Amino acid sequence: MSDWYTELDSTLDQVWQLLGRATRDPKSPLRTPVMATVGADGHPDARVVVLRDAARSAGVLEVHTDRRSKKVKDLESCPLVTFCAWLPKADLQVRIKTIATVASGPDVLSLWQSMSEAARRVYGGVPAPGMLLAHPSEFGIRPDPADLARLRCDITEIETLHLGRELHRRARFRRDEDWVGSWRAP
Amino acid sequence: MSDWYTELDSTLDQVWQLLGRATRDPKSPLRTPVMATVGADGHPDARVVVLRDAARSAGVLEVHTDRRSKKVKDLESCPLVTFCAWLPKADLQVRIKTIATVASGPDVLSLWQSMSEAARRVYGGVPAPGMLLAHPSEFGIRPDPADLARLRCDITEIETLHLGRELHRRARFRRDEDWVGSWRAP
Repeated sequence: MSDWYTELDSTLDQVWQLLGRATRDPKSPLRTPVMATVGADGHPDARVVVLRDAARSAGVLEVHTDRRSKKVKDLESCPLVTFCAWLPKADLQVRIKTIATVASGPDVLSLWQSMSEAARRVYGGVPAPGMLLAHPSEFGIRPDPADLARLRCDITEIETLHLGRELHRRARFRRDEDWVGSWRAP
Repeated sequence: MSDWYTELDSTLDQVWQLLGRATRDPKSPLRTPVMATVGADGHPDARVVVLRDAARSAGVLEVHTDRRSKKVKDLESCPLVTFCAWLPKADLQVRIKTIATVASGPDVLSLWQSMSEAARRVYGGVPAPGMLLAHPSEFGIRPDPADLARLRCDITEIETLHLGRELHRRARFRRDEDWVGSWRAP
């Protein structure tokens, strides 16, 4: 459907198609959205993350990270997360508000066991993420399942902005409105 | 300099070169970073913006927006802003923490006068950004200098993450450390 952006239902369908594709296609720009959090100091923070799963039925996104990273600390003081990505081929900005739950330890052991050696290398570096180094070569890789964290992000709102030639279309879909959707001024 | 990422000084130089280019080159991914703020409800928010100016001597970034947009409301309760962009050609993530000051009215009249008709069309839509519409075609364009806001964002910290083949290099530069820079665990 090439004019999916003209209706609310098809706009939401398109977002979920793009999210599904993003979890499989390394080239999708929605695979690497910016994830915004709020630090314990009240400062917003933002970094690129990799989208690992997207489940429409539950309205959930999944991200994996090092348990010792600042983003996990941010979530301890404020579990609210917003994802943002620009998809040039679709002329579409997608913004997704969520509430995150952090799982680690025994809860992610089966996830760890399902991961390749290469994938595991991202978790458990020494020293911990953000710590001072005299030189980048000092950093050591010591894969450790204790440092894997899975972020389950329950979506509360999806907002799209489609930049069309004649019209810009902004739409908002909220869980507490059963994802019905409304048009908004761009 | 092709190995700019191996030294702190040249990493910071590269960031400022890329920022300068971003304000002139529509194709630069750093021209359209994600801007993260905190809403009055404490929820982080994030959207793509256009970088209009970058001044190294003052350590300032500039963004223009509609004065009635949610991001301006966010800044009234919390002036802290983080920008984030991924630059594929440089294998570089840039994250910039700032404190924003909003200017509008007489303070932006000369800016308005310097703008093209096309550029002015983005400010002053009816209804205001985010307001409910029965249909996207209801939105009206009424350029109005009263709805132009200039965000002056004073940088407090620049953080880079360069993904190299053998080493990932993360560096942090802070205004209150005179931008000297330090290596960090990625």
